This record gives sequence, structure tokens and C-alpha cells, in this order.
Amino acid sequence: MAPNPQTLSGGSLLLAWQLKGKRVLIIGGGDVASGRIESVLVADALITLIAPRRGLHPLTKKFIDNCSDRITYRDRGFAGVSDLQKIDMVLTAIDNVDKSREISQLCREMKIPVNVADIPALCDFYFGSQIRSGPLQVMISTNGQSPKLANIIRKKIETVIPECAAEAIEKVGELRSKLRERAPGVGGDLSKQRMRWMVDICSSWDMEELSQLDHEMMTKLLEDGWEKNKVLRPEEVSPSLKIEGKNGGSPKVSSLVLPAAVSFVAGAACTAAFLLLHNPVVRK
Amino acid sequence: MAPNPQTLSGGSLLLAWQLKGKRVLIIGGGDVASGRIESVLVADALITLIAPRRGLHPLTKKFIDNCSDRITYRDRGFAGVSDLQKIDMVLTAIDNVDKSREISQLCREMKIPVNVADIPALCDFYFGSQIRSGPLQVMISTNGQSPKLANIIRKKIETVIPECAAEAIEKVGELRSKLRERAPGVGGDLSKQRMRWMVDICSSWDMEELSQLDHEMMTKLLEDGWEKNKVLRPEEVSPSLKIEGKNGGSPKVSSLVLPAAVSFVAGAACTAAFLLLHNPVVRK
Repeated sequence: MAPNPQTLSGGSLLLAWQLKGKRVLIIGGGDVASGRIESVLVADALITLIAPRRGLHPLTKKFIDNCSDRITYRDRGFAGVSDLQKIDMVLTAIDNVDKSREISQLCREMKIPVNVADIPALCDFYFGSQIRSGPLQVMISTNGQSPKLANIIRKKIETVIPECAAEAIEKVGELRSKLRERAPGVGGDLSKQRMRWMVDICSSWDMEELSQLDHEMMTKLLEDGWEKNKVLRPEEVSPSLKIEGKNGGSPKVSSLVLPAAVSFVAGAACTAAFLLLHNPVVRK
Repeated sequence: MAPNPQTLSGGSLLLAWQLKGKRVLIIGGGDVASGRIESVLVADALITLIAPRRGLHPLTKKFIDNCSDRITYRDRGFAGVSDLQKIDMVLTAIDNVDKSREISQLCREMKIPVNVADIPALCDFYFGSQIRSGPLQVMISTNGQSPKLANIIRKKIETVIPECAAEAIEKVGELRSKLRERAPGVGGDLSKQRMRWMVDICSSWDMEELSQLDHEMMTKLLEDGWEKNKVLRPEEVSPSLKIEGKNGGSPKVSSLVLPAAVSFVAGAACTAAFLLLHNPVVRK
């Protein structure tokens, strides 16, 4: 089917920006700034925070105190171009619209990606509503149309993310690294084989089982599995997985059991009441 | 509670990058490149596509043919720095690792954000697993640990996004614009009041009702609602909303009714069988 130009419009480009070891300048110390600090720390960046001490949000203060190895704090306002040297990204969350405009302009001249809270036109990118569980991150964007609906949808999404998802992803990440050590190389057939084997593992094991992988099980998966071009089943790797593994697997099952049990008892009770009323037990 | 530095690590910074009217260079014409083209067109950017015609993926060919007003196509390989002039972002998806490295290096010297498919170290950002429905976009990122698990989680998330979500978000976006025209201004008390009123609307109306807003209802919401500092209920704006509105509201309710009904009947049947077996009806 030919692409329809009408529907190819009206969105943003959703990205996972990589900030490990990069330096982010955050201007402002209020509530919004404290949220930015948290997101940027999660992305393993270093932060320079510029904000007058008077007016710092309590959470911002806590970040400054507890993460002093990662946050360089300047107790003042934005001082100009010199503050933008060696900076990889700028996030500003201050009330002064003119100052925000000036900062955005400088950033654009210096080709530093910038976000100005609440003034879309001055932003190279927006933030969305977010969920985080370990290495799992989900962002919900409405292209600026409705932050509130983004939040409502976020709450629905939270209900279907398995509790073991974070652990499962970390274990699979570890397994992938071990596999890459065992069979290294970028591109080519080997790389494709590695990808296929990892996909097969993730398709054959459920998330609860993946989250229980340990070093011993991973070694077995690789030595008795990968090396023999096989994908071992959970019970072939560890007998305990079969017994424990299926319980948390599907939130749908457990959310049906209680209403079904209640309905069964209700049906039984109504029928018993009806029959016993019309046909009292005959005592011999 | 003090922030825990241990958990503030191991993720990416999830962003909604704004590309309206910007120019993105896509190098490569295969399967991955065709996916990039689609995402970038959704973000309303202009594209320069560099790829030899021989080897173009069929979907890439279709994009070139159907979106020629937005895609400038060059039937050749990457030619060097001159290809990067006036470019706002570069996405490369080619098999040649050395060429990819060269392109990434040039982009970093020229401070142009770059992504190189399959080579994380050469990327300023990654793509995640995505869901799109009109202006609603959801991204699932596992920080590079497991694309397969990201996909599995994406499928779970798709099940809880209401069908009417896209429409609801567009209508709310429209309402917000009309409100901004009626009560304009950036920052300050009026801006806060506008935000609060929009939040109240989104909290009092369900998504199905919001998706049915039309021009007349929006006018009523503003003239009889906003102007009088009130949030009108759906039935006050349009009587038809009350009757239709609740059906699509909650996927959870309809998915419980059938199992509950079956369980009720099962309970009734078992009880009837038991009682009638032990207490046959006494015919007079």
C-alpha cells in the first residue's frame, strides 16, 4: 500500500538521547528544574546547575547535597556565553521570558540543543510523560496537545508493565554482553546469528523466567545452547524455573481469578437460595 | 526521602525532537532507512535521501515517489562535507562500517546530531520501539539492552491505548488553541488559570466524550464554561454525549463481563445439579 502523505505528519521524532559522560547545563532551581535534574542524572550525565540559592526547591537542594560528585552548583543567575562553554545540552526552567529567549538564541548560534520550559517555540525538543523501571523507559507524547491526557494514558500503561520487566531487561542485557564476548564482531553473519539467538531466547522464555537468570544459568545457555546452535528451554537450564516461573507471567490471569470466583459463588448462592425456597429438604 | 544516587543511572534522556521545517539527511535506502524516512516525515521534516538507486528497498522507492515534495533524492553514495551543509540531523543506515564512522566523525565536528544504525558508539541518540496513533506517540526504550523485550512490552501497551485516544487528543489540542485565542498570554496568572481549566476538563470528561467534541460544543464549553469560571459536564454541553459516551470508556469492564457471566452460570449449574441430585423435586 502506498504511504499516505496525509498521515505522515503531526508528530515528533521520539529519541533516546545518550548523555553518558556529557555535560548538561540546567538553569533554574525550582520544581521543574528538579525534575530535569533527575532525568539527566538517570542518563548518566554531569550537571552544571545555575540558580540563586534563595528560591531553590527542596528537591533541588537534596540533589545538590546528595549528588555533589555529579552536580556542579553555581549560586547565581545565567551570566552569558561563558556559561555555555563545553556544554552538550541546555535545559532552562526560569520565569524570566526575555532571559529564556536570550539563552535559547545563544544556544542555537552555538548549536547546543536547548529546551525552554513552557515556551515551545524556543525548544529543539520537548519532554513527555514518562515511566521508568530500571533500564526500561517509556515516554508518552501528545505533540504538545495535552499534557493531562498524556498523564492519563501513562497511568493506563503503568498497569500493563510487568513488575519483573526491569530485572528481565537487565538480565537479557547481561546475557547479550556475555554472548558478544564469546562471539565478537560488528556487522556480518555472526552479528546476525547473535541477534537471532537473542530474539529466540526472548521469545521462548517469559519475562518472569528471564528475570531469574543467574550467572550459572547464563553460562549453561551459552555453552549448552549457543555453542550447539540451540535455544534451551527454562526447565533445561534450571528445574526451579518451571515451578516458580509461570506465576507472575500474566497479569491478565490473576486479575480474572477473583471476579470469576466471586461470580461462581454468587451463582451457587442464588441457585441454592431459589431451590431450597421452592424445594425444602425433606428430612427422613 | 533523599534521592538515591544508585538508582539515578543506567537510562537515556527520552525526548520528543522537533523537526518541523528542518532538514534531515538520511544515508542509505534499505529496510532500516525506510523506517527512518517514515518517522522523520511524521515529524514534518524535509528529507535529503542519499542512496544508490540499485538496492533501494521497495518501501523507500514508494516514499521517494509519493512524497517528492518533501524528499530530495540523490542517486549516489555519501560525497563528504558538502552533503552536510544546512543539515539539522543525520541518520545513516548503510553496511559500510568505515564510511559510517567517517560520517559520524564529520557530524560531531559540525555539531550535527547523528545516529548510525547498529553502531551505538557512533550515535548521539538511539531509537526505541514505537507506537503511534495520530498525535499520540509512545516510545519504549531498554537503554539498548533488549530490542526484543522492548517490542514485547510495546505489544502489551498497545492493548491499553483506547481507540479514541488520537481523536481525544486532537480535540483537546483544538480546544486549548481556542482558549489561548480567547485568553492569550505567556506565563503569569492567566496562563496558570488556562492550564488548570484544561486539566479540569480532561479530568471530568472521559476520553470517549472528549473525542466527540465538535466546534459547537467547544464554543459552549468556552462561553458558558470558561467565561463563567465553570467546567461544564458532558451532558450539559450535548445530551447525546451521555447516552453514547460510556461505552468505549473502559476496556477493563467489557473484558470482565463474559468470564464473570460464565462463572455465574457455572456456579448455578453445579449447585442445581448437586441439590437436585440429593433433593429431587417432590411432585404433589
